[in-house]
Amino acid sequence: MKDASAEILEAQVQSAVEQRREIVNAAIGEELPVEDPERLYEAVRHLLDAGGKRLRPTVLMLIVEALADVDADPTDIDYRNFPDAHGEPLDVMSAAVSLEAIQTFTLIHDDIMDQDDLRRGVPAVHRAYDTETAILAGDTLYSKAFEILIEADAPADRVVEAMDVLATTCTDICEGQALDMAFEERTDVLPDEYLEMIEDKTAVLYGATTAIPAILFGADDETVEELYQYGIDVGRAFQIQDDILDLTVPSEELGKQRGSDLVEGKQTIITLHAREQGVDVDELVGTDDVDAVTEAEIDEAVARLEDAGSIDYAKDKANELVTSGKDHLSVLPDNEARDLLEGIADYLIERGY
Amino acid sequence: MKDASAEILEAQVQSAVEQRREIVNAAIGEELPVEDPERLYEAVRHLLDAGGKRLRPTVLMLIVEALADVDADPTDIDYRNFPDAHGEPLDVMSAAVSLEAIQTFTLIHDDIMDQDDLRRGVPAVHRAYDTETAILAGDTLYSKAFEILIEADAPADRVVEAMDVLATTCTDICEGQALDMAFEERTDVLPDEYLEMIEDKTAVLYGATTAIPAILFGADDETVEELYQYGIDVGRAFQIQDDILDLTVPSEELGKQRGSDLVEGKQTIITLHAREQGVDVDELVGTDDVDAVTEAEIDEAVARLEDAGSIDYAKDKANELVTSGKDHLSVLPDNEARDLLEGIADYLIERGY
Repeated sequence: MKDASAEILEAQVQSAVEQRREIVNAAIGEELPVEDPERLYEAVRHLLDAGGKRLRPTVLMLIVEALADVDADPTDIDYRNFPDAHGEPLDVMSAAVSLEAIQTFTLIHDDIMDQDDLRRGVPAVHRAYDTETAILAGDTLYSKAFEILIEADAPADRVVEAMDVLATTCTDICEGQALDMAFEERTDVLPDEYLEMIEDKTAVLYGATTAIPAILFGADDETVEELYQYGIDVGRAFQIQDDILDLTVPSEELGKQRGSDLVEGKQTIITLHAREQGVDVDELVGTDDVDAVTEAEIDEAVARLEDAGSIDYAKDKANELVTSGKDHLSVLPDNEARDLLEGIADYLIERGY
Repeated sequence: MKDASAEILEAQVQSAVEQRREIVNAAIGEELPVEDPERLYEAVRHLLDAGGKRLRPTVLMLIVEALADVDADPTDIDYRNFPDAHGEPLDVMSAAVSLEAIQTFTLIHDDIMDQDDLRRGVPAVHRAYDTETAILAGDTLYSKAFEILIEADAPADRVVEAMDVLATTCTDICEGQALDMAFEERTDVLPDEYLEMIEDKTAVLYGATTAIPAILFGADDETVEELYQYGIDVGRAFQIQDDILDLTVPSEELGKQRGSDLVEGKQTIITLHAREQGVDVDELVGTDDVDAVTEAEIDEAVARLEDAGSIDYAKDKANELVTSGKDHLSVLPDNEARDLLEGIADYLIERGY
């Protein structure tokens, strides 16, 4: 049930994203054209062309707009020659596509590792093509991300700093995925360990999305650090909200069975909290088959998690992170782009799905 | 059958490699320690610790020794603070480990794609661990390579240039692997197309191994370009020599069935030339089972390839490339390191296995 202010917020955020989507899509086409060997580059483009909200590129673009105190319609902004802190032209779209390439590479390899068949409503790359091509398409996006980031054409010291953030981020993501896999074998994972894992697996890419444009723009170290923390907080809130939505949004809105995380025994901040409260989370649902579970079983499981205070715990955590994330934005001048970055943080936990 | 000069050459090259191996191994331990999550980093180190000649790091170290005109015992050289063209300290070992990380990443992912079970006498990473961990270990080495290269601590403009070469090289390797996979479906591949494929798949990494130290050292553009070409020529010769050895070296020396490329229907410069000469290469061996083939069948197939002039064609090609590669070294001062780089080029086509 969304209230009126949430609807206004969602409309504002969606409008900001939509205004930039065409610009992002055009840049993807320019930076990652389908060239020889064609089958490889078609696989590279498969998920990129299947959609995705382009929330990260939008955030990246808003960061430089906020830093430069630019208040203009996105279609009137030359993001390919965006004036940096010293008035020198910066190719913001290179950085945006670079981050989108890294995000896509992680999705392609994750889908192989998790044996997921669908992504963004289309077959995963390893299903649409084959595992070999999917591994290779991910690897290609990986190196292309570095090639493309160099084309942002910032002074060399800033490029090195941005590349360092990108490389460290990728290492963190791999470590987070390895931790996630290791957690599956354990029944004693603590909520704080889980938060650390999602920071590595998910949030650092938001951190890179907000820090890298600030670095390339030529912002000072404190600003870069604050914007990085905004990204980390928002990224963690985003992941927690995903865990909450899995339990609270009707299946038809969610696009998959409500409670599927519970059925599949996936550990989340919610189940980890409940286990600490003495709930036997492994027995919450009597089946591990998503197709066999009933709505009544899910309802009962959710009620028990509510009784344990676990869903409220997760909501409080997400709220805390969003508040903290927005606080970090105070290093930015007060302008519309900053308002939108605040709005995106709020939207992430108020969104219905 | 090796003659005396070949044996002397081999002894010189092996001594150069052995003198540097401990230094390389120590640097690998420092740059890629087994840290948390341990299982991931153990998988990262699996092939690195299984050996390998360390030929590429040796070449990389010899390049800066030749450029700096240093003539000292490797144990007396501080490669972590190696004076660059302007006397500023350069961390050569970072660059060496970075390249070794990229090489290892490609081996791990290639073994998954080719479903190879053994590498360097030990189970491939996806066999010793599992496919998920192997994908992730490769991805981790990928980003670590970029992180570590930054630690070479050269001026930012040179780091950006070196990172650009590394990223482009990785993209080329992916494209080469995709071409190799596409060639398996075709019967009309031309020798020149094959040479282009092995340039992308194999030779560019040698090119990066010779160009990157020159860039970091601060060599001029022409020197960098010539050294890159040395790497490319030597890398292509190395791959062709591998194809020749598969047919000419007894199985026990080769460590696998002689002629296994032929039996498995793998296209090489030799079979592609033979096909152009009208030889029905698909019928050269009557089985596609490496365990079932007889030495007599291989002998007969080799005799037909010799009659078609295909083995001589490959030998001539490899010789040409080695000669051309050595010519590119004339940009270097005349010193022992340069002699060794020439020796390595010769060694690659005179080696028995």
